[in-house]
Amino acid sequence: MSAIPSIETATSPFPHDSVGKVKKQQFTFAEPPGELVLESGARLGPITIAYETYGTLSPAKDNAILIAHAFSGDAHVAGYYTDDPTTEKPGWWDFMVGPGKGIDTDTYFVICTNILGSCMGSTGPSSISPETGEPYGMEFPMVTIGDMVAAQKCLIDHLGISRLHAVIGGSVGGMQVLEWCVRYPHMVRSAIPIATTMRHSALAIAFNEIARQAIMADPNWRHGDYYAGQKPDMGLAVARMVGHVTYLSDEAMRRKFGRQLQNKDDFSYDFGIDFQVESYLRHQGSKFVQRFDANSLLYITKAADYFDLKDTISTPSCIDDLHKAHLKFLVISYSSDWLYPTYQAKELIQALKRTGQDMSFCEIEADCGHDAFLIKDIRLTNLIRGFLHGVPRN
Amino acid sequence: MSAIPSIETATSPFPHDSVGKVKKQQFTFAEPPGELVLESGARLGPITIAYETYGTLSPAKDNAILIAHAFSGDAHVAGYYTDDPTTEKPGWWDFMVGPGKGIDTDTYFVICTNILGSCMGSTGPSSISPETGEPYGMEFPMVTIGDMVAAQKCLIDHLGISRLHAVIGGSVGGMQVLEWCVRYPHMVRSAIPIATTMRHSALAIAFNEIARQAIMADPNWRHGDYYAGQKPDMGLAVARMVGHVTYLSDEAMRRKFGRQLQNKDDFSYDFGIDFQVESYLRHQGSKFVQRFDANSLLYITKAADYFDLKDTISTPSCIDDLHKAHLKFLVISYSSDWLYPTYQAKELIQALKRTGQDMSFCEIEADCGHDAFLIKDIRLTNLIRGFLHGVPRN
Repeated sequence: MSAIPSIETATSPFPHDSVGKVKKQQFTFAEPPGELVLESGARLGPITIAYETYGTLSPAKDNAILIAHAFSGDAHVAGYYTDDPTTEKPGWWDFMVGPGKGIDTDTYFVICTNILGSCMGSTGPSSISPETGEPYGMEFPMVTIGDMVAAQKCLIDHLGISRLHAVIGGSVGGMQVLEWCVRYPHMVRSAIPIATTMRHSALAIAFNEIARQAIMADPNWRHGDYYAGQKPDMGLAVARMVGHVTYLSDEAMRRKFGRQLQNKDDFSYDFGIDFQVESYLRHQGSKFVQRFDANSLLYITKAADYFDLKDTISTPSCIDDLHKAHLKFLVISYSSDWLYPTYQAKELIQALKRTGQDMSFCEIEADCGHDAFLIKDIRLTNLIRGFLHGVPRN
Repeated sequence: MSAIPSIETATSPFPHDSVGKVKKQQFTFAEPPGELVLESGARLGPITIAYETYGTLSPAKDNAILIAHAFSGDAHVAGYYTDDPTTEKPGWWDFMVGPGKGIDTDTYFVICTNILGSCMGSTGPSSISPETGEPYGMEFPMVTIGDMVAAQKCLIDHLGISRLHAVIGGSVGGMQVLEWCVRYPHMVRSAIPIATTMRHSALAIAFNEIARQAIMADPNWRHGDYYAGQKPDMGLAVARMVGHVTYLSDEAMRRKFGRQLQNKDDFSYDFGIDFQVESYLRHQGSKFVQRFDANSLLYITKAADYFDLKDTISTPSCIDDLHKAHLKFLVISYSSDWLYPTYQAKELIQALKRTGQDMSFCEIEADCGHDAFLIKDIRLTNLIRGFLHGVPRN
């Protein structure tokens, strides 16, 4: 008679509501004639899309949810890459995605792809160009939010999924959600755009342009051709600092930092770090350069700036195309988001209503700014859980 | 009989409500023992203060108004430097200061000084250090808003003025106004702080820190020692772009730029200029580097960050010191100013009320953001005119 395993060895090392260990996946496609025709007219291929999945695809393939990540995110939404959850942080939306969570992996098959143009496994400016055998750099063609979504669609087709139960994402992820709805309305049952906009405002463009200029001002940038040498870390760090301020709010910064000094009783009267907020920003900048590619920042911010769901002119991204379909929408904004404020969510709702969509809207009162959707909040979890539950599967 | 001059030759070439041709003035002082003791404890001297005056000082010397300029301003508030008003722009507050204007030079003797640490004639990091015979660069000591005001006081003493009818300024100028009131309450009859704060917020510090990091990341900055070579123009331009976004508002940018393209019918799909707001920012950046010194930006932003009128601890800048005096205040904020929002003006008012000051407050509804006080607006003119008229001269 063999020994009964002890409770300890029988227990998963992962938290009970975690999707546990997940693995990186890749899909490479070369559409006939071997490439994707981008919105600019340029051709790009072959294209590799890094992705992860959680949960199990139903036999009817009707329980798939696509999550679209924000600007600097990746496909690693939930779970861990190792067997030891104490050695690394789980995915970026782990509080939302897992067994029994807001996006319940006991019910849904969840997919997340790294966006085209990024540097987290999908093809982007740091990828090797098949033509030159060198990183693309500035030879990488401009990609739009629509192009990112077109690449995602190739993966969804490849997985044999004809209709997504939901597409969900915040910020630049929310733009992808909207682009999915207008490009492929018959492939989407419901959509949850969070903390996003239907067209990038002048203010948002301005901040992105400052971030780009900071990178391009760094002599190490060398017109994007830096992969063999020193990287434009100084410029990228300043760019990230700009981004971070836009992700927070005045209230959040008052609460989090105020005028607290860093390791000192008095002012330094020099240009070192005096205030905690300075330390925080410098830390965010130097952390970011270790994980992100400066050229990817250039391309993705430009894609966001180009984003505009025109409601009058028939284009590939025209909101009027939704007339052909009937989707359920849950639009979520945050009261202290000044990058994509609630009035922009309301503009989106008005435009969607004109096309006869089934609309729900919630502005969540929170003082933590644009990035609030990345912070664990039971209100967001309950909103998403309830909405998904109300979307019919057929 | 000599010829009667024709009307044309008798007419001033200047607009009738202009102060006309003005001249740059300088005052250099070396307080015993030859220098100013700064808040940091460092000593600086001799100090030159560039200033301008408009109107005539009354025999009783009781009609003087000091205007404090904002961060990148100068002493040239009104009028022209040449006899030909068509060849140059008038001073930065020409719509406010002149005969019959809001600050009426027929009634008041108006003084404006360039702040300590700047690069517009007053001593700053680009000035020649008497010790080395070279520009100070980073050897320039840190100066505070209090130090700027202490230097201004030396000039006011030199002019023989024992009490100012009013001290008026916006933004960093408003901080100087408040510092005047708490440091020298018996030298101030009334004060108009505009679009300002009693303590720099974490958000405002964050933007300043990004601007400083952008400059310091420029290899031409060379730890401030660039006066003999190439200047850190790229970094300074990015810093200015950051500043400009904070001076505007979301609404102003929507109205002014929206998503208007620059000279194009479609997107460029490259990293050139697509949107008008990008063009505007790049233009502001490149214009600024021609007139401003990067080190001065470092020093003045740091002075603003240090600014904090403590209301509990007795320091050189303690608001409780106002208990000793009774001043008239007109506090003005702008509804769309998100750098120093109205709630900060209200905090100031509460603190001033606790010290028993005579308070007036107005929030001006305007969608043009923080910089609104620099834009001609009859409401601001009337507010200031009316308030000044109500301040008794003795």
